[in-house]
Amino acid sequence: MIKAGTSNNWGGMKMSLDKKTIDRAARQMLERTRADGVKTVWDRLEAQQPQCGFGLLGICCRNCLQGPCRINPFGEPSRGVCGADADTIVARNLLRSVAGGTSAHVDHAYEVVEALDKIAKGQIDYQIQDEHKLKAIATKLGLETDQKDITTLAGEVAEKAFESFTNHTSETMGWLAAWAPQERIDTWGKLGVLPRNADREIREAMHQTTMGVDADPINLLLATVKQGLVDGFAGLKLATDIQDIIFGTPQPVKAETNLGVLKADHVNVVVHGHVPLLSEKIVEWCRRLEEEAKAAGAAGINVAGICCTGNEVLMRQGVPPATNFLGQELALATGAVDLMVVDAQCIMPSLINVAQCYHGEIVTTMPISKIPGAHHVPFTLEEADQQAREIVRRAINSFKKRDMNRVQIPEEKVPIVAGFSVEAIIGALAKINAEDPLKPLVESIKNGAILGAVGTVGCNNVKFTQDLVHVELVKQLIANDVLVVATGCSAHALGKAGLLHPDATKNVAGPGLRQVLTAVGEAAGLGEPLPPVLHMGSCVDNSRIGDLLIALADYLGVAVKDLPVAASAPEPQHEKALSIGTWAVAMGILTHVGLPPHVLGSATVSGALTGQPVESLLGGKFYVEADPVKAAEGLINHLKSKRKALGL
Amino acid sequence: MIKAGTSNNWGGMKMSLDKKTIDRAARQMLERTRADGVKTVWDRLEAQQPQCGFGLLGICCRNCLQGPCRINPFGEPSRGVCGADADTIVARNLLRSVAGGTSAHVDHAYEVVEALDKIAKGQIDYQIQDEHKLKAIATKLGLETDQKDITTLAGEVAEKAFESFTNHTSETMGWLAAWAPQERIDTWGKLGVLPRNADREIREAMHQTTMGVDADPINLLLATVKQGLVDGFAGLKLATDIQDIIFGTPQPVKAETNLGVLKADHVNVVVHGHVPLLSEKIVEWCRRLEEEAKAAGAAGINVAGICCTGNEVLMRQGVPPATNFLGQELALATGAVDLMVVDAQCIMPSLINVAQCYHGEIVTTMPISKIPGAHHVPFTLEEADQQAREIVRRAINSFKKRDMNRVQIPEEKVPIVAGFSVEAIIGALAKINAEDPLKPLVESIKNGAILGAVGTVGCNNVKFTQDLVHVELVKQLIANDVLVVATGCSAHALGKAGLLHPDATKNVAGPGLRQVLTAVGEAAGLGEPLPPVLHMGSCVDNSRIGDLLIALADYLGVAVKDLPVAASAPEPQHEKALSIGTWAVAMGILTHVGLPPHVLGSATVSGALTGQPVESLLGGKFYVEADPVKAAEGLINHLKSKRKALGL
Repeated sequence: MIKAGTSNNWGGMKMSLDKKTIDRAARQMLERTRADGVKTVWDRLEAQQPQCGFGLLGICCRNCLQGPCRINPFGEPSRGVCGADADTIVARNLLRSVAGGTSAHVDHAYEVVEALDKIAKGQIDYQIQDEHKLKAIATKLGLETDQKDITTLAGEVAEKAFESFTNHTSETMGWLAAWAPQERIDTWGKLGVLPRNADREIREAMHQTTMGVDADPINLLLATVKQGLVDGFAGLKLATDIQDIIFGTPQPVKAETNLGVLKADHVNVVVHGHVPLLSEKIVEWCRRLEEEAKAAGAAGINVAGICCTGNEVLMRQGVPPATNFLGQELALATGAVDLMVVDAQCIMPSLINVAQCYHGEIVTTMPISKIPGAHHVPFTLEEADQQAREIVRRAINSFKKRDMNRVQIPEEKVPIVAGFSVEAIIGALAKINAEDPLKPLVESIKNGAILGAVGTVGCNNVKFTQDLVHVELVKQLIANDVLVVATGCSAHALGKAGLLHPDATKNVAGPGLRQVLTAVGEAAGLGEPLPPVLHMGSCVDNSRIGDLLIALADYLGVAVKDLPVAASAPEPQHEKALSIGTWAVAMGILTHVGLPPHVLGSATVSGALTGQPVESLLGGKFYVEADPVKAAEGLINHLKSKRKALGL
Repeated sequence: MIKAGTSNNWGGMKMSLDKKTIDRAARQMLERTRADGVKTVWDRLEAQQPQCGFGLLGICCRNCLQGPCRINPFGEPSRGVCGADADTIVARNLLRSVAGGTSAHVDHAYEVVEALDKIAKGQIDYQIQDEHKLKAIATKLGLETDQKDITTLAGEVAEKAFESFTNHTSETMGWLAAWAPQERIDTWGKLGVLPRNADREIREAMHQTTMGVDADPINLLLATVKQGLVDGFAGLKLATDIQDIIFGTPQPVKAETNLGVLKADHVNVVVHGHVPLLSEKIVEWCRRLEEEAKAAGAAGINVAGICCTGNEVLMRQGVPPATNFLGQELALATGAVDLMVVDAQCIMPSLINVAQCYHGEIVTTMPISKIPGAHHVPFTLEEADQQAREIVRRAINSFKKRDMNRVQIPEEKVPIVAGFSVEAIIGALAKINAEDPLKPLVESIKNGAILGAVGTVGCNNVKFTQDLVHVELVKQLIANDVLVVATGCSAHALGKAGLLHPDATKNVAGPGLRQVLTAVGEAAGLGEPLPPVLHMGSCVDNSRIGDLLIALADYLGVAVKDLPVAASAPEPQHEKALSIGTWAVAMGILTHVGLPPHVLGSATVSGALTGQPVESLLGGKFYVEADPVKAAEGLINHLKSKRKALGL
């Protein structure tokens, strides 16, 4: 049983290994880096103690050159130089952070829309893998699909997508209007938070947070909600939809995870980052250059993933995930990674230092994402194949220089099942009831075999024992018959802990959940149960969870906010986690976070986000709890109260 | 003679009045607020001492929930939790700040483009005042203008403008491509900093600055340059161009400035903010409701301006500016302001508290700019007249409640001449040489009567004695035959000091400059010299300075970077000052700032901005000097070196 205060790294005490991570492979590598005097993210957290209390509370403002200003939470000064108080400063900082997260996702989505547009124009060597999804999306957007060739339709969908970034009418963002439930659109419309287009709202949020513009914390919070909607629909959903069209919609796939997936006798290429445009090509070229690798003395080329680009190629290609966010330096510490190619987001600049101590080349690829000391291959859609080939050849070359005596790969690897797109889930359920596939799931919820569902998502944060909150929370949930769906680094954590596997259904899941998952697995001809945690993909694939909830609510004829469901980012770290969480709350979902954003310096803001003000307006709110067992209790109680309200 | 260290408020000592401001009206009001125990921006600066050294140096990062992190400038920790070092953190913070300033200007420009679009569509009650400028801009954009009615052409120009915000090709932003010199476009192209569209670049900059994306300080600085170009062309220039089309291109206009322009027996309405869409209507309705004011016992309605919306209505309507940024609270302290209507930017939230102590209603008008305690009238283009009427009626009503015994208006008011658009300057020069109007100016520069030109721009910053650096710097410059053009709060400061008036040409300007300005004034039939400082408008009107320099460079057949010119933001405060300054440097102009942005924690970043790296790439760089006399010397030396390089 886990005690409260798992985020106990704050005190600046030297942490023992078991406080750093629950991942045995990570512990082994941490012993190695400690012995070698190589600094990792845990050392840097310790060196940063004590962290600035003003910053933690969100009551520090650097938005003009009259500052920086700090508010004294216990008295004076209660206002910054311009006159902004703690409420204004906290809300302004939060909005700017959420706009940062939203921008990251929208920029990602824009890139894949550009790719679709160029495919339609025949300008690049990528193909449309899922024509069915293309047509389904086109139909939802109101496009005529009959008798249109696929590239024409792809061009029209790309054009519609571009409008969601850049229309200059005051109409609601198209991707939201096409997919959000009417009940939500009405709710958001009344609050004045319906976004027009993504880029305009980001620009406006930045303007709104400059000195001398918005001083109203509630108005700033509403703008934050608007950013959440931009993130959810023009970031997450748009990216996922277009990626499925281009690369295919995931279907269940088996793989293994943890550092043991690296192979001492192979060229090891690690893809790290978030956008699959490059990593899909890397995977392809790793297969195509197998013979060159053999000629260089390797048994072949092994490609593994980290973070969400790892999730993307896991979901569609079965590429094994090596580790999650906090393990990225430790993968290099094996001495077996010949090349790590990164695109954007969650990439520690310290990778260079670790690679220099052990082995491996770091290759950056995007114009906005460079690291001094890395080799930069400027990736373009037009020359993606040449660039991917060049990168894989660099990996083979790097392999030749590897010191085999310094290779130390942990044995840990764990079997997982991933690839649970909404289409895949409905496909499995259709094996039970082809006419009405959602019925078995809904019936299981209604009869209480499944208590409800929780999506666990988001990051590692080094302030927590790596993976601990993810894993202990989810163990509690599934033991209590809660179906869990997972994405991002949460899915990685659960995978390493064995929870993405049918065995966990047998050994950890409660009896009701076990029975349902076993029945579905048998009906689907898997010969084993579904795992108790369904891996739905990368962080942008949180939109898949949204799609599933919208479908369930629609089926039941209720609002999403009334479903017995919740979300959790147990170990949130990135600004993207804040924007995703805001979207989830805007959808009406109770959203647990293991750590609050930097808002505690304003009772108005933190009170609104976690209490009645936001819940009464949106149906959802934030729920902060660092202890996974208590959080599980809180979430289970929430599911029960939602069941009760529905008369279940 | 002014000594070094004018920014001497940092020590946290109680400041004497003469350290706070050189403005006598402001001093009088500060005595009043002190006597009444009313806090102002100077008190809040003192209360904030000492300000955070990490924030001042730019080495504090709050971009993820593993932080906040701080770099020790003297040792360890030298890296944040993610591994970002001081260079990365400083450059990332700077880019995000400049993106904030850019967003403010682009959002402003977007609003006026929307207005032009709606005018073209006949949806709103605004008119096109300058058809000549509309046609000139349309021609430059490559549009056919013959035999097209004005509203059609306006619609086409609006459409072109929208493309500069939102085109989704990879082409260069249209407003830049149409106006930037080819030499600059080539320079920027080589550096990879040509912006595609404004909103996309802002979104990308936000993405680039999230955790784990860009760690390369030079790459981040190049992205900052790109933001500067977005600001200069899709913010400043676009806003000015469209505002001239809608409201008319300014022509020389006489007015008075300082708090003495408020009238005890009138209803006093103050417009404050930046966007003229509302303030133009307010001015109109102040005139139209004159009789209602008289019926309420007032002698009439007096409208005055603060900050840049004040400059806008000064330039086009002759509305007197009451004060600049630091004086906004002090205007309320007169007890004579019945209503202050604000739009966005540079509006102190503390206005509410000061108004509550003295008199006057604060009315906010924009959805993104609210203040708790203010009355909010949601401004829309469609109902602008009704809303302006409502606001002016509220002012009349407020006048009725004013306590005449508590009115205390300083006597100070100073005559000024403003309205120097490029068109107005060329118009005056054409009186000397109608065929070749730039010739007299260029000849005066060539023969040394005019040493060169400096644009002084930007904010007040309470860390400086209000207006002191602006005024003492400019006195030195004009005494040394440097022509000064000014905008924003700098122009306000110079106006209050008497430097926007022909008398200053007689009394302060050097002999060469005096002779030229006298000759132009006589030729133009003014009966007096031009002022030695030409007021060119608001902060977005810095684009007028850019236009003038481009025209001069073109005339001389040299690059802008080779002209004997410089820019100065003597007392910079807002993120907009950073984005404007970055644009100026990108144009190739030496740009003086009295205070550095928060970059001193990185020798790489601060060294690049102020030294050879940036100068060799762009031709311009930043120059930091708090002492106005030393700064004047530095700028004069720069002009001389540029003259020498041109063989003058």
